[in-house]
Amino acid sequence: MNKIIIGVDVGGTNTKCGLVDTRGRVVDRARIDTRQYLSKQSLLFSAIVDTVLGLIQKYRGERSDILGVGMGLPGLIDTEKGIVRILPNIPGWRNVPLQRMMEDRLGLPTRIENDVNLITLGEWKYGAGIGCRNLVCMTLGTGVGSGLILDNRLYRGEGFAAGEIGHMPLKRHGLKCNCGGSACFERYVGNTVLVKKARRLFRDKTITLEQVSLLAAREDPRAVAFWHETAVTVGDALTGVVNLLNPRLIIIGGGVANAHRFLFKTITDTIRARAMTVQGAMFVIKRANLGDDAGLIGARVLVDNPDL
Amino acid sequence: MNKIIIGVDVGGTNTKCGLVDTRGRVVDRARIDTRQYLSKQSLLFSAIVDTVLGLIQKYRGERSDILGVGMGLPGLIDTEKGIVRILPNIPGWRNVPLQRMMEDRLGLPTRIENDVNLITLGEWKYGAGIGCRNLVCMTLGTGVGSGLILDNRLYRGEGFAAGEIGHMPLKRHGLKCNCGGSACFERYVGNTVLVKKARRLFRDKTITLEQVSLLAAREDPRAVAFWHETAVTVGDALTGVVNLLNPRLIIIGGGVANAHRFLFKTITDTIRARAMTVQGAMFVIKRANLGDDAGLIGARVLVDNPDL
Repeated sequence: MNKIIIGVDVGGTNTKCGLVDTRGRVVDRARIDTRQYLSKQSLLFSAIVDTVLGLIQKYRGERSDILGVGMGLPGLIDTEKGIVRILPNIPGWRNVPLQRMMEDRLGLPTRIENDVNLITLGEWKYGAGIGCRNLVCMTLGTGVGSGLILDNRLYRGEGFAAGEIGHMPLKRHGLKCNCGGSACFERYVGNTVLVKKARRLFRDKTITLEQVSLLAAREDPRAVAFWHETAVTVGDALTGVVNLLNPRLIIIGGGVANAHRFLFKTITDTIRARAMTVQGAMFVIKRANLGDDAGLIGARVLVDNPDL
Repeated sequence: MNKIIIGVDVGGTNTKCGLVDTRGRVVDRARIDTRQYLSKQSLLFSAIVDTVLGLIQKYRGERSDILGVGMGLPGLIDTEKGIVRILPNIPGWRNVPLQRMMEDRLGLPTRIENDVNLITLGEWKYGAGIGCRNLVCMTLGTGVGSGLILDNRLYRGEGFAAGEIGHMPLKRHGLKCNCGGSACFERYVGNTVLVKKARRLFRDKTITLEQVSLLAAREDPRAVAFWHETAVTVGDALTGVVNLLNPRLIIIGGGVANAHRFLFKTITDTIRARAMTVQGAMFVIKRANLGDDAGLIGARVLVDNPDL
C-alpha cells in the first residue's frame, strides 16, 4: 500500500506543492512564485491547479492511490464550509469557496486550513510533537502565530481565529500594532522588528539575525544581551499561555527560532520563574523539526484525519 | 423517570451538598461548615459522607434512582485517577484517592473535579452558556480562576491545571503574587485587593464593594473611576485570552461580578478596542446566572457525561 496525498502550502512569497506518502515524507514537490500571481485571485488558483495536475501526471502509482488534497493558506479559513475568508497578504482572496473549487477541478476530496494550523498538525504527528496530547506550536517569524493541540485535537476557535499568540498584549500601553491593538507580543519579537533593532544596536544597516547569532556565539556582549532580552520577552508572553493552557510542550519554529541556542534556555528559565508550580514544572520547549516541509506534511495529517 | 444525582461542592468556608434532578434543579440540600473540620483530612471526609448519607435517607424515590456523585474541590484534581493532588486552602489534602474513598463508602459511582471547572460545566449546560461551543467561565472573587469549554469539551490541561486566568501577567514587573509570579491579573482585581484599594481610596476602613457600587450608582466620581479602572484591567487581561482562544462567550461570576453594571460594558469596550477584528467582534460577556448552586448543578453535568 502506498497511498499518497497532495499538500499545498500557500505563502505570500512561495507556494509549495508536494506529494506526501504514508510515512509523512515529501516524495515529489513543485514550487510556485506566488508574487507572479498576485494580480488576480483566479491566476493563483489556476497556477496551483496546474502545478498539482503536473505532480499527479508525474506520479507513477495508480490514480486511485491519491487520497486527497490538504491545503494551508495564510489567513482566516472557514474549515467547516471550506471557504477562504481573507488572506491579509494576498489581495483578492475574500470569501473564496476554495474547497469546492479544488474538488471541482481535481476530482479529489480537499480540505483547507490555516497555514500555522497545518504546520502544527505536521509537527504534532510527524515532528517535534509526536505523542503529545497538549501542545502549543509557535512560529516566530515576521509574524508570530501559533496552533493549539488540546486534548489531541486541533483547536480552531469559534471563528477559526484561535492561536493568535503574537497578539497577546505584553502590557497596557506600548507599540501600536497593525491588528489595531497595542503592545502585542509580535511587535517586540517579530523578525522585522528584531532586524531593525539589531541594525540600530550594532549601527550596521546590513546586519542580519544570523550575524547577530554568530556574534553571540563568539560571546559578543551586545549580541548576547540582544538574544537574552528577546528570550525574556518571549518567556513573558508564554507565561500567561502556560498558566492558562497548561501545555506539555511548546514547539518553536520560524526564522527567529534559528537562534534557538541563544533563546530557548532563557525562555524556559523565564517561564519557570514566573509560571505556577504545576504548569511551570511540566512544560518543555522544543524546536520545530520539519522545517519548510511542515505544512505539506501537515496536509497529510489533515487528509488522514477527517475528524480533526 | 426522576433520576437524581448527588452534588458536593467543597469550599474553604462552606461545603454544599445537594440532590440535583434531571432538569438541573437542586431539590434538596445540606451545608457543612468546612472550618469545623479542617484539623484532619478524615474529619471533613466523614462529615461529607454523613451529610450525603443524610440526604440519601431523606430522599423519597428509589435508591436505584440515584445515579452517582459529582464533587468539586478547590484545588488540583487528577480527574482521571480520581485523586485530590492538593487543596491550597484546606490543609492535609494531598494525594487523597477521594473518588475510590467515596465509592467505597457510598456504593455510588463518583467523579471529582476542580471546583471552577464544575461551575463551568453547570453554567455551560444549565446557565449562561447554554448551547455555546467555546466559552471561558471566569470567577472574579478572592481569587480569579476560569474554566474552559473548547469545542464542546471541558479542557483541563496536561496536568489538570489549565484555566489559571488570574495568573496571566499584566506586565513584566509588578506586584508579587502568592503563586511565585509577579504582575498576575488576580493581584489587581481579586476581591481582597479591591476592598483594600477601596478602603484607601475612600479613607474608610469598613467600606465594602457593595457600598462602592451604591456610590457608583449615585455617580460618585471616585466610585465610578474605581470600577472603570477595574474593568479596564479585566479587559486588558482578557484581550490576550480572546486573541488566543477566540471564544464566543465569556461568563463572569464571583463576588466582584456583582458590580456587573459598572464593569461589563467597559470590559467589553476595552477588549473590542484592543483585540483582533474577528475575535473582538464575536465574543460577548454574560454574567454567571446559577449563583451559589453552579457547582452542584455542574455535578449533574459531570455525572451525566462520562465522556467529558
